[in-house]
Amino acid sequence: MLGLMQNHPLLISSLIDFAARYHGDTEVVSRRVEGDIHRYTWLDVQRRAKRVANGLDALGLQASDRVGTLAWNGYRHLELYFGVSGSGRVLHTVNPRLLPEQIAWIVNHAEDRVMCFDMSFLPIVQGIHTHCPSVKHWIALCDEDKLPADTGIPHLLSYEAWIGGQPDQYPWPVFDENTASSMCYTSGTTGHPKAALYSHRSTVLHAYASALPDVMGLSARDAALPVVPMFHVNAWGLPYSAAMVGAKLVFPGPAMDGKSLYELMEAEGVTFAAGVPTIWQMLLGHTAGNKLRFSTLTRTVIGGSACPPAMIATFRDDYGIDVLHAWGMTEMSPLGTLCTLKEKHRHLPEQEKMKIRLKQGRPIFGVDMKIVDDHGEDLQWDGKTYGDLYVKGPWILDQYFKGEGGDPLVDGWFPTGDVATIDADGFMQITDRSKDVIKSGGEWISSIDIENIAMAHPAVAMAACIGMPHPKWDERPIVAVVLKPGAAASRDELLGFYEGKVAKWQLPDDVVFVDAIPIGATGKMLKTRLREQLKDYKLPTV
Amino acid sequence: MLGLMQNHPLLISSLIDFAARYHGDTEVVSRRVEGDIHRYTWLDVQRRAKRVANGLDALGLQASDRVGTLAWNGYRHLELYFGVSGSGRVLHTVNPRLLPEQIAWIVNHAEDRVMCFDMSFLPIVQGIHTHCPSVKHWIALCDEDKLPADTGIPHLLSYEAWIGGQPDQYPWPVFDENTASSMCYTSGTTGHPKAALYSHRSTVLHAYASALPDVMGLSARDAALPVVPMFHVNAWGLPYSAAMVGAKLVFPGPAMDGKSLYELMEAEGVTFAAGVPTIWQMLLGHTAGNKLRFSTLTRTVIGGSACPPAMIATFRDDYGIDVLHAWGMTEMSPLGTLCTLKEKHRHLPEQEKMKIRLKQGRPIFGVDMKIVDDHGEDLQWDGKTYGDLYVKGPWILDQYFKGEGGDPLVDGWFPTGDVATIDADGFMQITDRSKDVIKSGGEWISSIDIENIAMAHPAVAMAACIGMPHPKWDERPIVAVVLKPGAAASRDELLGFYEGKVAKWQLPDDVVFVDAIPIGATGKMLKTRLREQLKDYKLPTV
Repeated sequence: MLGLMQNHPLLISSLIDFAARYHGDTEVVSRRVEGDIHRYTWLDVQRRAKRVANGLDALGLQASDRVGTLAWNGYRHLELYFGVSGSGRVLHTVNPRLLPEQIAWIVNHAEDRVMCFDMSFLPIVQGIHTHCPSVKHWIALCDEDKLPADTGIPHLLSYEAWIGGQPDQYPWPVFDENTASSMCYTSGTTGHPKAALYSHRSTVLHAYASALPDVMGLSARDAALPVVPMFHVNAWGLPYSAAMVGAKLVFPGPAMDGKSLYELMEAEGVTFAAGVPTIWQMLLGHTAGNKLRFSTLTRTVIGGSACPPAMIATFRDDYGIDVLHAWGMTEMSPLGTLCTLKEKHRHLPEQEKMKIRLKQGRPIFGVDMKIVDDHGEDLQWDGKTYGDLYVKGPWILDQYFKGEGGDPLVDGWFPTGDVATIDADGFMQITDRSKDVIKSGGEWISSIDIENIAMAHPAVAMAACIGMPHPKWDERPIVAVVLKPGAAASRDELLGFYEGKVAKWQLPDDVVFVDAIPIGATGKMLKTRLREQLKDYKLPTV
Repeated sequence: MLGLMQNHPLLISSLIDFAARYHGDTEVVSRRVEGDIHRYTWLDVQRRAKRVANGLDALGLQASDRVGTLAWNGYRHLELYFGVSGSGRVLHTVNPRLLPEQIAWIVNHAEDRVMCFDMSFLPIVQGIHTHCPSVKHWIALCDEDKLPADTGIPHLLSYEAWIGGQPDQYPWPVFDENTASSMCYTSGTTGHPKAALYSHRSTVLHAYASALPDVMGLSARDAALPVVPMFHVNAWGLPYSAAMVGAKLVFPGPAMDGKSLYELMEAEGVTFAAGVPTIWQMLLGHTAGNKLRFSTLTRTVIGGSACPPAMIATFRDDYGIDVLHAWGMTEMSPLGTLCTLKEKHRHLPEQEKMKIRLKQGRPIFGVDMKIVDDHGEDLQWDGKTYGDLYVKGPWILDQYFKGEGGDPLVDGWFPTGDVATIDADGFMQITDRSKDVIKSGGEWISSIDIENIAMAHPAVAMAACIGMPHPKWDERPIVAVVLKPGAAASRDELLGFYEGKVAKWQLPDDVVFVDAIPIGATGKMLKTRLREQLKDYKLPTV
């Protein structure tokens, strides 16, 4: 027997309608590519999103046609979020930091029909447009008078001319909430990128979950600054969750240096900000160097990579700002866990609390997780045992766009590719990437642990730990080390540095000195490349 | 094109599994009918809910069979919430404050197969059990040794004996999230009660929405005390939302006097409480009389009827506790609006803030509302114009159980039966019930406004305003007044009391002195009964 409640699909158009109807005068403020500040309201976002929808109709786009973006965090990008998805098309946010040939490959794979780009990325578009046959319309996110005379791109439109003549009335279509709404390609370190294809349902559920008090805790009294890019996993869903609760949104545009961010935060009364550690490092450098205080910021969510303990401590102790560690993936919309303490932790000594804050956190309702061994068997939640982290839930990927890579799930669980511990309270901590962990005699050794110890040595600039084949133990760890300019340390000295810091069987078998460790476009070490470089290497212990 | 996210239905079983898995040691504390305190954890709730599910299987219950409860807020009731709905049956919470013949009518209409009751309600069950042929199993929510020797109820089981032998493993079935999960009858003032039939989907979506920062703001650092009964609209969804966020739950059982509630709040560190104004009046009476402070309570949600301004002020000024006005209905699961201020209100003078706090609040995402005139046309959101309040959303009723009363919707909107204003910021304020508003010459006069003025007169104990037929104006208001014992006031004096307080055309045409005004079981004035009493009355102005 079915319940007798009203049948309303969860749609992204409802989010913008809600924000316009109940928070119509709440501001959305953007630093533009041009450097100036643009401000308007949620009501304006809705009206212009409806113009976008009419503009897409005028271009002849069909339901589920892809509309690409190469854009910073800003108001026009926000209008595309709602206008494209709301009208039943698929928003395809493209990462402009990729190489032009990667961008062209992605645009072709997604079969984008329209590409909207900030003028910062005109050179990219000029380089790829002849290689992207599916794109019928190139639209520059600017006023008509800002369009250069000769860009070489046929029929280039300005965004303002395109939507300018369109009506701001548009009856949002009502459809199955499982309909695709947006997509994002992962920056795969091997092979071609693969795309997660989000649905209206997954997006709205993720918005509900991410605004909860133990997650981002968003309300109509917040001014939220997403420094995390809208071109990558929808800026952690903030455009949607802010609309859901009627929060003010503040967009930094391309200006993500410490000074620009600080001034924007103070000018706009930002209470909440989300970003990666490198951004906050720049911000804290600016505030410390100029003896500045934050007058409205109360909390920041940090994800993308593990946050250094010193940064958490600085935010808390020097500025009274809560740092919340978050973890997620493109394949997870992206939020999986947030590190919010429980009531039982309230009276712990500060250093015990810090140990918990360094973990990636506990799942939000909607996400379930487990850690498993090589045979897929559940491992203990003791905060020490680590294994492959698997997740499932309604905003987690089922398969990649066009079925690329086959069925990624194992018994309904998505393998994250991370290795993690889970403690008895459900707090998860990433210890390594699955492909980097060293499997030695049935035991796992965290490459990150080995690297962190080497990095603590005063002579070491960079360190990468990889496993080398071993006839008895399967794999044994070695550490490749780049010394600081002018510094010296011998192999034996560095190996000796590990003593007492790890169990004997976890000690690296060797230290290899290298001039550099290969780094990818997103700043991560490319261990596959390092392994290629060391393909003729032989373990001294064999 | 559909998105490619995992397909997981929103099910109530996922809520209890989540609470047990990630908040397994968080407590659920109950004052029992026997008066003592029972404490255990969310993990225990899950295990015993699974015993309930096995117990229902053992009784031969099919999917969607109804399981009734006549019970206070307590841990066994909570286990039934999850065990009954989680296993695919429908939880039917029955209001024990109704008359026995009403309860029997409801049980028969719902076709309950099982009835679980607290021993407080044994006399009710003894009175009705022979009139409830659908109920095959009567289960007393107690230990086996607490069961009286001869109750006259054949095959009466104790809850603990029933579930005691059952395993605490149970594979929750997975089914369509639109499946019915629970039901609640409205206490209709006219005609037979009608039931709202909630679904798993509506329940989980309502839980997400109700835990948001601008609504109940629930987190794993909260200890929530639902004084609102679990036998009426699922205690405003708190059993579900608390499980969703891993909050501690504290149940008062039948002891809702000020002293018992205060002691429970202090002993259990309650941070959040939800109830109706009369309960809080008793609580504040106790604390004021004994010069007590609240050490952990930070906020309380008040609904059910409008909260007196003095109570909001007392909670804030004397105790530092935030009072949040809420509004909802049985047909709305129940939450529609909550009165949480916006950022723009932060710097208003306190008396301006109070004016907003007295409103019923603004919608949560998922609820949409409008006010309409007699012709169904939208009315202005100016905070003054009032009209019939209509709502829609995924946790709002589509039709009543068994289609009773036909199709209640008007163009997809549910007419609440309330008359309200909405201001430019989306804050709604109830001004009257639709059936009580007086329609005079095309204008509406709020009966509540007229009553409140009369009540402010020192001689008046109670006042009820009703409309009387008028050949020219359709209706004109009169006010029926009960004087305080020993007090005196003339008709002219009372009519004069209105001058300057309302517009001239809103002045009552007459004052009628009565000995008493009929009051229903839920404490509301029965104006239908009053109209019958005054059926021979003639307006002096005709």
